[in-house]
Amino acid sequence: MNGNALNGSELNRSNLGGLDRGIWDLYVVTDRKLACGRSHEEVAAAALAGGSRVIQLRDKEMTTRELIDTGLRLKEIVHEAGGILIINDRVDVALAVDADGVHLGQDDMPAALARRMLGREKIIGVSVSSEGEALAAELDGADYLGASAIFATPTKTDAAPIGLDGLRKICDSVRIPVVAIGGINKGNIEQVIKAGAAGIAVVSAVVSAPDIGAAARELLQEVRRAKASMGRCAAPGANAGTRAGAQRWG
Amino acid sequence: MNGNALNGSELNRSNLGGLDRGIWDLYVVTDRKLACGRSHEEVAAAALAGGSRVIQLRDKEMTTRELIDTGLRLKEIVHEAGGILIINDRVDVALAVDADGVHLGQDDMPAALARRMLGREKIIGVSVSSEGEALAAELDGADYLGASAIFATPTKTDAAPIGLDGLRKICDSVRIPVVAIGGINKGNIEQVIKAGAAGIAVVSAVVSAPDIGAAARELLQEVRRAKASMGRCAAPGANAGTRAGAQRWG
Repeated sequence: MNGNALNGSELNRSNLGGLDRGIWDLYVVTDRKLACGRSHEEVAAAALAGGSRVIQLRDKEMTTRELIDTGLRLKEIVHEAGGILIINDRVDVALAVDADGVHLGQDDMPAALARRMLGREKIIGVSVSSEGEALAAELDGADYLGASAIFATPTKTDAAPIGLDGLRKICDSVRIPVVAIGGINKGNIEQVIKAGAAGIAVVSAVVSAPDIGAAARELLQEVRRAKASMGRCAAPGANAGTRAGAQRWG
Repeated sequence: MNGNALNGSELNRSNLGGLDRGIWDLYVVTDRKLACGRSHEEVAAAALAGGSRVIQLRDKEMTTRELIDTGLRLKEIVHEAGGILIINDRVDVALAVDADGVHLGQDDMPAALARRMLGREKIIGVSVSSEGEALAAELDGADYLGASAIFATPTKTDAAPIGLDGLRKICDSVRIPVVAIGGINKGNIEQVIKAGAAGIAVVSAVVSAPDIGAAARELLQEVRRAKASMGRCAAPGANAGTRAGAQRWG
């Protein structure tokens, strides 16, 4: 466990920000289809070793029973490393696993309904691609947003990327942290952070990498370097970020 | 609304048996893939018009949001006709829709976990194919069982059928009602009811039929004829069934 890490017993949304301001720096979505034969557990363990502190379990093929069993094993691995486990889409699985939260797309359960089921202490993230969706999600009780897709990506071909301008508008419109997703790599992280993102979320950039830990570490360093260059996250209590959200959790 | 039907406000498991002893006679699973282009709503409305009082929403392709929206519309249609709505697999959707219950396969959430999430009043059904699974499900708090597959069927090719002997063993081992599923047709209903089933569950036999209502009506008549020939369900309070489960709800 590193000194900044969360303890299992302290994992709840009310004190998330206070414990680790950089929690959103690198958010890794484990997707088996992109993991080159590696399991969710292997991917998560390697990403955590590389410094990620938020792991999302996403698997559209598994049965509910498999998702629950995998989620329970992941929770152990993630909490052991001081991270938090978010379940994609499935509020029932998040409840069964007692995960730290759930991530909801626009085609998933509405956030307000999920909040009623999950209670106040669980983290709810919502995928948004416009200011309107961002405001609605914040109003519905979301704790963080996943803004996507920032750049074009081979895995998400269904919508035009929102670009750095779209990201900036979303970040400026809400108080909650915004994690940028879609086509993020080492070369564009600084722009993404400067646009107001609290961190980056990645799938293939980490889970398809031959060395997952090294890939995570490299991206994380770049996020931290970008934040440091802006004077953000210098120390808890002192924050030169311009956004309210960044001041809370950035 | 027919005189024997349940009212929306009365739909809960504690009084299910008392209100309509024949509720399990014909249980229809709406499966879009087998419905020849008709929607869940169309299938349900026609099956209810044909006399079915239990409708299960099953759709493995829909997003969570679509399932919830469809479930809400189905609930209205089903309750209007005095029936109950069961959601396949998804406890989160059942909660979001406030459906009457959930049906769980052996690959879905364990029934005991689902019971904790759904509370005492919701109906939980479990698919079983052996005495051991039946006893475990009853112990876990299931309200009814779906015993499958009784006969070979083109839609379920993953396991050998349990036959009438397998069905009889399951029915004899538990107190809760057992609905028989898999290859049921007009020609074998009498044997299935004589083996102890509280009713039959069908997918393609009803939802793929050119006239869904007529197909449902015909199957239902045969179930009632078979029960009447055994002296079962003659009148509330008087029941000549041999099984405890049949005495409760059969």
